[in-house]
This record gives sequence, structure tokens and C-alpha cells, in this order.
Amino acid sequence: MTDRVVTAFAPATVSNVACGFDVLGFPMEAPGDCVTVRFTGASGATALVTIDDIVGDDGRLPRDAERNTASVAARAMLEAAGDRRAVALTIRKGLPLSSGLGGSAASAAAAVVAVDALIGARASIETLVHCALIGEGLGAGGAHPDNIAPAICGGFVLVRHPNPPDIIRLPVPAGLTAVVVHPDIEIETARARALLGTSVPLADAVRQWANLGALVHGLHVSDFDLISRSLEDSIAEPRRAPLVPGLAAIKRAASDAGALGSSLSGSGPSIFALCRDRAIADRVAAAMTAAVQRETGVSSQTYVSSISTRGAHVVTA
Amino acid sequence: MTDRVVTAFAPATVSNVACGFDVLGFPMEAPGDCVTVRFTGASGATALVTIDDIVGDDGRLPRDAERNTASVAARAMLEAAGDRRAVALTIRKGLPLSSGLGGSAASAAAAVVAVDALIGARASIETLVHCALIGEGLGAGGAHPDNIAPAICGGFVLVRHPNPPDIIRLPVPAGLTAVVVHPDIEIETARARALLGTSVPLADAVRQWANLGALVHGLHVSDFDLISRSLEDSIAEPRRAPLVPGLAAIKRAASDAGALGSSLSGSGPSIFALCRDRAIADRVAAAMTAAVQRETGVSSQTYVSSISTRGAHVVTA
Repeated sequence: MTDRVVTAFAPATVSNVACGFDVLGFPMEAPGDCVTVRFTGASGATALVTIDDIVGDDGRLPRDAERNTASVAARAMLEAAGDRRAVALTIRKGLPLSSGLGGSAASAAAAVVAVDALIGARASIETLVHCALIGEGLGAGGAHPDNIAPAICGGFVLVRHPNPPDIIRLPVPAGLTAVVVHPDIEIETARARALLGTSVPLADAVRQWANLGALVHGLHVSDFDLISRSLEDSIAEPRRAPLVPGLAAIKRAASDAGALGSSLSGSGPSIFALCRDRAIADRVAAAMTAAVQRETGVSSQTYVSSISTRGAHVVTA
Repeated sequence: MTDRVVTAFAPATVSNVACGFDVLGFPMEAPGDCVTVRFTGASGATALVTIDDIVGDDGRLPRDAERNTASVAARAMLEAAGDRRAVALTIRKGLPLSSGLGGSAASAAAAVVAVDALIGARASIETLVHCALIGEGLGAGGAHPDNIAPAICGGFVLVRHPNPPDIIRLPVPAGLTAVVVHPDIEIETARARALLGTSVPLADAVRQWANLGALVHGLHVSDFDLISRSLEDSIAEPRRAPLVPGLAAIKRAASDAGALGSSLSGSGPSIFALCRDRAIADRVAAAMTAAVQRETGVSSQTYVSSISTRGAHVVTA
């Protein structure tokens, strides 16, 4: 007999990671979202998912199960497994909305991992990612698993191909520590994407893939200097910089405090930095937090974390 | 006392390597160019280089030392070392002109390595590449060291930044073998570059850097299946395909014979394939040679070689 209630946690994720626009991401240890799933006792001709409750979103996420990232992902998971038992979800948002920390990905990832455990499907990573992607397709207006894949797999993740997902786990050098500062401003992903346009100068694109190739190599050989030189975004960051007042000054503060590099997390407004150890990361976090206050005049939340190597996981069963 | 005559060999190089446009390259063991340098006995206020002879170019390369790739590179090397002794060069072209096999890079690389040995400068890789680049800047109308760097360093080489050069040697999986077929047609590098335009669709660019990141990872972990999936060019090959009649059929012949992947070498017309071992490479070479004959109606030269790990080197001193 399967358990009747399962809760899964999925972490915040930093996507793009400077030179890896749309293809690279990594998860933090925390914060994250939790999704609890239970069998309702009903079953039907098609997968059926309802929402019991959503906590921590100030009432802003859709309660309609047809339109909620987590419930759509949960239904996709049930359908993939051919399971027709009805389930109900409780979603606890630990991530701020529209923060650039992969909030919708975390909800979708937690939902599929929870459903997978509830029904005992033991689905492959590819299936979990695919189902979460169906959920997130609603939230982000597109299907880029650069948050979903690291949220589910853990580790530094490169998505070679979005669908069907071709997911590559890159090594994480010992000591590598992430700082994320989330200023209390909101950016719509769709607006941030529109700023990019649909074409880019070839020279900028060449520079981007040179840096991405170098970053992948740097992660393999734990070359922090090379990682530092590679953490440069010639595509998205220059075009999105106007969305975050004072971005250049905040990045300079990170770099002056010893960060290897920094950039927007996802489409912002959160800003991440990577550091070679925890002590440096703590200094970088303080410097970035102060710079955000000085430059934007708004408050912020700051997180310091190693790169999570496990991703979404069941926390109670 | 330094030797009075030095000859250096520099190999053919495959640049771009499908997903690594302008940033990735590798050298073959052969064919290549040889450059012999000797002191003339003169010296002056500035570096002085003359050309004794050029062999194997059917008289097509400039004899004017101010305009010849090898002599300009040689002079840059003398200047970098602060050496004012006059030298004279003999250039033996083993590479066909405008073949996409890095012919001008090979001449420049052989010249700087020969001069470096002649004057006993023991210059760094970065200096050798920089000086060869000055030479090749003439030949290719631009300064992209994705042929120069592998010709000098050996191995699979990623150029993170062109100038000053930031050069990364990637691992070469055991067994990896290259096939190059050079159809007897000529493509001007400048024309091939014009076909690319100056901007590219963002979606194509994302696909390119996803593949490049995956290829770098695949080389590190010797994952031939991933290397195969990653050897896809969404930028240059589609736009340059019209330059090589029957390219799609030639690529299909390579793939049917067991190649991991294939694409244009540099700006073509040469076509390379990568294979997981020598036996497969020999079959792929036969299949591609037959396909080139069938599709283009012209004859071709075919080369099979492991990835050279030593690059340009002195052959007599």
C-alpha cells in the first residue's frame, strides 16, 4: 500500500548563471517551496488534481487547478504514470513571486516529486523534468527547463536540449558557494524576455559560447580563476540591466568583496554571486545587501548557500 | 651560440568543430606546413624578415614579406623578443590554399615556432599565439585564433578570449579520431564569413551554446554519445551549406558509416568527421570520399588522423 500523504521540498534555483542563458542553472539548499499531496479517495477516467490550499503567496497564485503550475505538473505526472486516482495539493510558497529564483519551477518540481512518491511511480529524471515543464509552461510563458532541471536533479545542470530534455550534471568544485540577494521589486518574466528581442549580434553570441565552454571546463578542473573570467553575460544582462537600478554598482560591490562573478538570477531582480568559499560568500553577501539598499532604496532578502547536490526531495512521507 | 637554421612543422587544424564557431579547434597529425628560418647575418634598428622561397603554393602566395602570413608572424616574434637580427624564411606549403584546414594559421604557427627556436626566446604559448595571430590577421581579414591556438598548442583547444588570448586545452578522449575530406573547390574565407551576416536568431544562439557546453563536458568524461549529440552547428553550417554542393548527403554518408558527427572544417570546403576509433574513421573516410565524388563531381584529398596533442614543433635544428 502506498502512503496517503507525501510532502516534497524543491529549492530556489539560479538560472542563466551569467553565460548560460536558458541552458544553465543550479539549486540553493534553501529557500524553496513545499508541496503536500494526498489521495482524495476518488478516481476517474482521467487524472484529477485539486488544490486544498496555498500558503505564503498572499493569495496571488491561481487556486484554479487548471491554471496553477504545481497542480498542472502534478496532473502531468499522474498521466505519465497512467494513474487515475485523484489527488489534492497543499502548496507552501517559501519563494517570493517573480523574484528570478525559479519560484514556479520549485512548485512544479516539488509537485511532481511528491506525486511520484505518493503513487510509487519511481519515474526517471527525464520524466519528472518533462512533467514539471508542463506545469511551468503556464507560469513562464515558455518551456525552458533551466530552473526545472536543477531544481529536480541538484548540482550544476546544463540543459543541452529542452524537450525531450537532455540534461547534463556538471561537477561542483569543493567550496563553491552562492550568494543571492533579492531586492523587493518584481519583474515579470515576460517583460524581461521581451527586452531581449529575437536576434543578437553574432559577435556577442560567440563571446557567450566561448565563456560557457570555459565555465564548463572550469567546473571540471576546479579552476576558480577561469570560472571567474567566464562568468560574463554578453546577451541577457546588458539588455536587462535597466530592470534593476544600480546593477553595475551592486556587481562591483560583489566583485570588490571577493566574488568570482555575479549576474542576474534568471530574469532578475535577484542577483547571484559565486564565491570560492563560505567565508568570502558571507562578506560578499553583506556587501551586496548594503549595495542593494544604497542603490535601490528597497529592502532585500539575502541567502548564502552551497550548491545543493540533491535537488527536490521528499521531506515527509 | 644559437643554431643558424631551424625548421618547424605546424599541422592542419579543424576549427569551429560544429558547435564551436570561432572558438574551438583541433590539429591533425598531418598534413601541415613547414617553415625554415635562418639568420642572414644582417641586423638593424628594427626586426627584418625576408623570404628566401615558397614551395608548394603554385606561386600564389605573396613573396612580399610585408604581405605574407609567415613572414609577418616571424617579424612579430622577433619584435616581441626584442631581437634585431635579420632572418630569412623558406615556406613549404603542405596544405592546400583556401581549404578550410587552417593553411595560413599553419604557416604563421610554423614561422613563430621556428623563429622562437632560432633566437632561443622560449616564448610563452600566449606570446606565440599572439605573434602568429598578427601574421594571420593578414590572411583571413580578421583575428580569430581558433586555428592558430590549436596549431601551436596541440589538443582540443577552446579560445575563451581572442586577444589577449585566453586559451584552454580540453581533454581528448582516448580513441577519438578525425577524418577530413578536402574537395578540390576553393572558398574564400571572406565570402564564407559574409554569408553569416552580423546577427543571428537568439534561439539558434542558445542552441549553439547548449551544444558547446555539452561538447566540453563530453570531452571531459569521454561520453561519445553526448559528443555525438553535441556536434551540431545551428549558426554557420546552415548558412554556409550552399558553398558545398551535396553537403547534407556527405554528412549523411559519414553518419551512416558510424561517425559521431561531421560539419564544415573552418569555412569549408573541407568537411571533418569525428569518430570513436581508427577503424570506424577508416570506414567513414571511404564513405565520405565516395560521397564527395558522387555529390560534387570533383576529386578530393582525404586525411585520417588522431587529434595531435603536440601542435607545431621543431623538426630540425
